[in-house]
Amino acid sequence: MQNLSSEEQHQESGVRRQVETIRPASAGPSAELKAVTGVDVDPSTELRAGWQGYPLLAGINGVGDLKGLSVAQLKQLADEIRQFIIETVGRTGGHLASSLGVVEITLALHYVFDFEKDKLVWDVGHQCYAHKIVTGRKEEFRNLRHAGGVSGFPNPEESPYDQFAVGHAGTSIGTAIGLALGEALRQAQGEAKQAGQNKIVALVGDGSIVNGASFESLNNLGLVKRQMLIVLNDNSMAIDATQGAVAKYFSKIRLSQTYEDLRRTTSDILEHTPVIGKTVEEAIERIKKSIRMVLPASQLFESLNVPYFGPVDGHDIGALVQLFRAMKQVNHPVILHCHTKKGMGFTPADSQPSKYHSTGPFKMNGDVVEPATEKQGRSFTDAFGDELVRLAEKDKKVVAISSAMCEGTGLKKFRERFPDRFYDVGIAESAAVEIAAGLAKSGMRPVVCIYSTFLQRSFDQIFQEVSLQNLPVVFCIDRAGMVGADGPTHHGLMDIGYLRMMPNLALISPADAVEVGGALGFALSADRAVCVRYPKEIIASQQIAESSSEPFVLGKSVVARRSDKSVAVIISYGSILVEAIAAARALAEEGIEVDVINARFAAPIDSRIVELLGSGKPVITVEDHGVACGFGSAVMEAAGQHSGGFVPQRDGGAVRMLGVPKRFVRHNSRNNQLMEVGINADKIAETVCQMLNR
Amino acid sequence: MQNLSSEEQHQESGVRRQVETIRPASAGPSAELKAVTGVDVDPSTELRAGWQGYPLLAGINGVGDLKGLSVAQLKQLADEIRQFIIETVGRTGGHLASSLGVVEITLALHYVFDFEKDKLVWDVGHQCYAHKIVTGRKEEFRNLRHAGGVSGFPNPEESPYDQFAVGHAGTSIGTAIGLALGEALRQAQGEAKQAGQNKIVALVGDGSIVNGASFESLNNLGLVKRQMLIVLNDNSMAIDATQGAVAKYFSKIRLSQTYEDLRRTTSDILEHTPVIGKTVEEAIERIKKSIRMVLPASQLFESLNVPYFGPVDGHDIGALVQLFRAMKQVNHPVILHCHTKKGMGFTPADSQPSKYHSTGPFKMNGDVVEPATEKQGRSFTDAFGDELVRLAEKDKKVVAISSAMCEGTGLKKFRERFPDRFYDVGIAESAAVEIAAGLAKSGMRPVVCIYSTFLQRSFDQIFQEVSLQNLPVVFCIDRAGMVGADGPTHHGLMDIGYLRMMPNLALISPADAVEVGGALGFALSADRAVCVRYPKEIIASQQIAESSSEPFVLGKSVVARRSDKSVAVIISYGSILVEAIAAARALAEEGIEVDVINARFAAPIDSRIVELLGSGKPVITVEDHGVACGFGSAVMEAAGQHSGGFVPQRDGGAVRMLGVPKRFVRHNSRNNQLMEVGINADKIAETVCQMLNR
Repeated sequence: MQNLSSEEQHQESGVRRQVETIRPASAGPSAELKAVTGVDVDPSTELRAGWQGYPLLAGINGVGDLKGLSVAQLKQLADEIRQFIIETVGRTGGHLASSLGVVEITLALHYVFDFEKDKLVWDVGHQCYAHKIVTGRKEEFRNLRHAGGVSGFPNPEESPYDQFAVGHAGTSIGTAIGLALGEALRQAQGEAKQAGQNKIVALVGDGSIVNGASFESLNNLGLVKRQMLIVLNDNSMAIDATQGAVAKYFSKIRLSQTYEDLRRTTSDILEHTPVIGKTVEEAIERIKKSIRMVLPASQLFESLNVPYFGPVDGHDIGALVQLFRAMKQVNHPVILHCHTKKGMGFTPADSQPSKYHSTGPFKMNGDVVEPATEKQGRSFTDAFGDELVRLAEKDKKVVAISSAMCEGTGLKKFRERFPDRFYDVGIAESAAVEIAAGLAKSGMRPVVCIYSTFLQRSFDQIFQEVSLQNLPVVFCIDRAGMVGADGPTHHGLMDIGYLRMMPNLALISPADAVEVGGALGFALSADRAVCVRYPKEIIASQQIAESSSEPFVLGKSVVARRSDKSVAVIISYGSILVEAIAAARALAEEGIEVDVINARFAAPIDSRIVELLGSGKPVITVEDHGVACGFGSAVMEAAGQHSGGFVPQRDGGAVRMLGVPKRFVRHNSRNNQLMEVGINADKIAETVCQMLNR
Repeated sequence: MQNLSSEEQHQESGVRRQVETIRPASAGPSAELKAVTGVDVDPSTELRAGWQGYPLLAGINGVGDLKGLSVAQLKQLADEIRQFIIETVGRTGGHLASSLGVVEITLALHYVFDFEKDKLVWDVGHQCYAHKIVTGRKEEFRNLRHAGGVSGFPNPEESPYDQFAVGHAGTSIGTAIGLALGEALRQAQGEAKQAGQNKIVALVGDGSIVNGASFESLNNLGLVKRQMLIVLNDNSMAIDATQGAVAKYFSKIRLSQTYEDLRRTTSDILEHTPVIGKTVEEAIERIKKSIRMVLPASQLFESLNVPYFGPVDGHDIGALVQLFRAMKQVNHPVILHCHTKKGMGFTPADSQPSKYHSTGPFKMNGDVVEPATEKQGRSFTDAFGDELVRLAEKDKKVVAISSAMCEGTGLKKFRERFPDRFYDVGIAESAAVEIAAGLAKSGMRPVVCIYSTFLQRSFDQIFQEVSLQNLPVVFCIDRAGMVGADGPTHHGLMDIGYLRMMPNLALISPADAVEVGGALGFALSADRAVCVRYPKEIIASQQIAESSSEPFVLGKSVVARRSDKSVAVIISYGSILVEAIAAARALAEEGIEVDVINARFAAPIDSRIVELLGSGKPVITVEDHGVACGFGSAVMEAAGQHSGGFVPQRDGGAVRMLGVPKRFVRHNSRNNQLMEVGINADKIAETVCQMLNR
C-alpha cells in the first residue's frame, strides 16, 4: 500500500476535480463532518501568541522546571494550566471535564516522582492533558488532536514520559504490575541497584476501576512485592455517571465526607505512613485503625488485600505532595483514593460533566457556552437512536444496553422514553453482552450499543454467549471505521473480521438514513444475531441511491448504479457507498462507466457478488475497515470456496481490495484519514483507471 | 461445504487406502493421538449392563423421580452418582474432580427448584455431570464426550434443562442477570403472573468468581429487583489452585471454619432468612448481625452490595435443601457460599484434585490409579514446555505467564525450574496479557501460554497493550484447531483471524518437533510480538520434512516436498502438514505429483506464495482453523492486494481453501473431526483430484 501525502494523492488523481464537484453536498464527508468529529480549528478564534497571560506556564518547558516551584506556585500553575486547557479545547475540541479534574494530581505526581526513570501509567488516558503540557509538549498542545499536534491520549511516540498508548479502560493496573515485576526482576538479576529502584504509579478513574480487567489485576496485586502506587481518581463519573455497586459504595463514602474529614484523613495518613526504619506491617495496622475511626471506607480493597488510604482531597496540591512523598517510600502496593471534581474550574463542565466529557470546539459568551460551529447535519448515531425509539414503540420486547456510553451511542432518547427497558452497565462490555444474551434467551430483543473498538472487549462473549447459543441479539456498532481525532485506540477497523468468523451472525451496514431504517428493522426481526456497523459520520439526509429503499433481505446486495456500458464493478460495504458513487460519477464524466453494488451484507456474502468476480470485468471492493479479514476478504474467501475454486473466466478479470492497510493511522480529521488510506472517491476512481490501464 | 458422514467420505476417496499405508506411523493423528485426547473407550473395561449396583439411580429417569425421595435417599443417590461418574470417566476420560464435588448441590437444587420452568445457569460447566445424569441423560452419559454420547458441557441441544452451552469461565452471573431482567419484564408486560415467577439460579466456582466478567456482573447485580440465587461452589481450586487475593480471602475463611461453625452458620441463616410476611430488609439485617457474630466473612460481597450468606457445608444435602427452600423465597439477589471438596469420594482425586481435573481413561488397581492406555508419544504441549525451559536457561529475560493452566499448557517444568520467572494469574486472561505487556516494556521476554479459545478473552489487550505498543510478547497458543472431546466451546478456530488483523504481530505455526525449536527460538529473538499456534496433538517424533531444520526467517515459507512434474501445489500451515504430505505421497502412488509448501507464517504471508497463485497450477491451502479469516484467506488477500490485483496467468489456475467451515463441530475424537470437516489426507488428495478433473 502506498503511503502518499494528501497533496501527492491529489496531484496523482486525474479525476479529482470532478469528484469534488459531483459529490452530493448533503452526504459527503466534507465540511459538515467537522461538526461531528470536532477537529477543525475554529478560524474565528485566534491563536494567542506566545504565553501572555500564563506567567508561570510560560517558564515550564519540561518537568524539571516544576521542581523549583513552591506549593503556592504549583497552585497558581494548576489554575493557569486549567485555563490553557479550556482555551485550547475551545478551539480544537477534546476531552475537557476529566482533564480539568486531574490537574493537581498530575502536578503533584511530577513534583514528587521523576518520570524520566519512574513510570507513570495512565488508565484510558483522555485525562492526560496537564501531563502533556508539563512534559515538554505545551506548544504542540495548541494543536491538540489535529494533524501536527499532540494526540488526545498518551503516546510513547510523542514522549518518553508516556509509557503506553491507551484509550480503553481498565488496563493500567495490569500493565503497572508487569512493569513492577519487570523492575523487580532486573534488580534481582543485578541490572539495577536497590537504591536506584524505579517507582511505579498507575492513575485510574472510578469509571475504570469497575471494569473487569481492573478487578483481575487488583486480584493479582499480591504478585508485586515492591513499591507500586495506584492513585484512584474518584470524580463519581466515568463518561456518564458511573454505574453499579462499587460506584454506589464510593458515592456513599463521598457523601459522608466533609472537607474537614478529607483533611483529617490526610493528616492521619501522613502521621502513620510507614517510612524507612519503621516496620511496615506495624505502621499499616496503625494507619488502618486510625482511618477506621474516621470512616470504615476501606472494606472493598481490604478484602482484596490491597492496602488502602483515603479518601483525600485530590485538589489540595500541598497535601497531595506530602502524600505522594510518603507513598513513594512504601515497599509494597498501595491504593490512594482521591476525591476530585470532574470539570473543575470550568463552570459549565462543573455542572454538566457528562456533556463536556468530550466536546467539539466552543465559544464562551459570558458564562454561556456556544458551539463554535453550527451543527450541519444529523449523525448516523442520531439516526439510529431515533429509529430505535420508533421500532421500540411498536415492539415492547426491544430493550437497549449501553456500556457507559448512553449519549455517545445515541440512546438518550431511548432511555428517556423507555427507562424500564434501558440498562447501563458501566464500562463493562463483557457483562453487557452476557446480560443481553440472557435477555434474548428469555424472549426479549436486546440491542447492544457499543463502539466498535470497545466491543473488542466482548469478543469472547459474542462467541460463547451469542453465536454458540444462536440468540437474536442486535449489536449496534457505532464508530465503526476511521474515527478522526481520537486516533488509533478508537478506530473501529476489526469488527467485520472478528464477527464474521462466528456462525449464526449476520453482518450488515447501511449506507444512508433510509437504509438505517431498513437495517435496524431487518435486525430486530431476524431469527439470529445481527451486527449493524456505522461510522462517526454525518448521514446523507436523502437516500443516495434508489435501491436504498428496497427492503433488507438476508444475504442480498442491491445495485446502487448500473450502466449497460460498464467496464468495471465497484462493490461497496456500508456508508462508504457515497464515495463509491461519487467516484462512479466522476469516471462517467471521463467516459468510463462502472457499476456500483451496495453489498449491505458482509455475512453472509451474496452469491451474486461471487459471480461478478467471474464476469471478466475488474472488480474493486471498498470498505471503511481493515483489509485484513474485512469485507473484501470475505468476498475473496467466498470465491475460494465456490465449487471448483476461484477461476476467473477470462483474461483481464481482476480483483482489488480497498480498505485500511495493516498499520496504525494517526489522529487527524476523518476526511484526511480516508484520503490517507485511499478509500475516498478520488482514490477509488484512480484504482479503476489503474486496473483499466487508463 | 459438504457434510458427509465419515463412512461416505471413505467410500468417496479413491486414494484412501494409500493414505492409510503411507502416513508416517510416528506422526499421524492415529492411534497414539488417543492418549492425548483421551476419548477412545478402553476396550478392556466392559460396559456394565443395566443399572446393577445402582439401586436408586436405576429408578431416576428424570428430575421428577427425585422429588419423592427422602433426604436419606438423596444422600445414597449422591454416592451412587459419584460412583457412576468415576466408573464412566474411568472409561471415557473427562472432568472428574469438580464434578464429584458438586453432586449434593446439584441434587439439592433439583430437589427444591423446578428447572423445567426455573432456570439453572452453569459457569464453565464441566462440573455438570450429576446434572446430566438426573435430567434424563444417564444412558447417554455412558458415552460421555464420545460421538453419540452427551457432551462434557451443558448443551441446550441435548436438554431443555441446559440454558447455555458454556465452557469459558465467568459468564453465568451475567447471563443469569439477563434472564432475571427478561423474566421481570415479561411479568411487567403481563406475560407471566407474579405467582408463577420463574426462579433463577447461577452456580459458579471460586475459580470463576475471580474472573473479570464475574466481577463486572456482580457489580451490576443491583439491576435485578427480584429473586436470583448465586451459589458459590468454593472448593479452593479452579483447575490449578485458585490464585489471587480473593482466593486467599476465601481460604482464610475456610481455614477458620470448623465443621461445627458451618452447621451453626447454616442454622443461623435458616432461622433468620426472610420469608413472605416478614420485611425483607429487617430480616437481612438480623441475619447479617447473626452471621457476623460467627465470622465477619461477608465484607467482600457486602461492599459490592450483594447480600451474602455462608459459608455452609456443600455436602450436607439436608441443610442444602433447607437453605435453597429459604433462598427461593427471597425477592432480591443473594449469594450462598458453599464449601465443597473437589474430587469428593475418589481418594486419588481427593488428594490430587489438579491431576484429576480433566483425565484420560484410567483403571483402578486397588487404590492405585493407572492410565488405561499407555502414553504413546509426546504432545506439542510437552515439546513446547521442554523447549521453553531450554531457551530460558540461556536467556534470563524469559518469563512465563499462565492463566490457571500451568499443567495444561506444559509450564510445570518451567515453574519448577524458574519459580521467580513464572506467574499464574488465575482465570484472568485479560490481566495475563496486560501484565505481559508491562514485563515486555521493562525489557523482559514474556511468554503467555493460553489455549486458543481462552485467549479470545484477551483480544482487546493483545490489540491495545501489545500490538499498538509494538511490544515483543510471545503467545504460545495451545489447543489451536480442533480439540476433540471438549467440543465447540474449546475448539481454537479463530486465533489466526483475530490476530492477523493486528499490526506488528507475526503469526507462526510449527509442523513437527524440530520446528517447535525453530519457532520458539525465532519468537524469543524477534523484534516484535509473535504468536505460535499448535494443536492438542501428538507431535511427530522425527522431522516430517527435510526443510523442518531450516531456520525460521520472518515471512518465509519452506518447501516440504517438490517434484519437477508437479501439477498442483498444496500450501499447508502448521501441524496439518503431516496430512498434506500423506496426501501428496498417496497421489504420487497414483501418478499425480504435487508440491507441498510449509507456509510457517500466516502473517506476514510469503510473497512467493502469492506468486504460486499465478503459476497456472491449482493451489490448495490447508489449515486446522476456520476458513473465515484464516491462513488461506490471508493468502487470497495478499493476492488481492498484489500490484494489479489478483489475475491468474493462465486458464486452469484455481485456488481452493480447506479448513473448518463456519459451523460448530460437535465433540468427537480429533481424528474424526478433521475427517468430518475435510482437512485430513484423504480429503486433501480428493480435492486435488477434483481440481485436476481426475
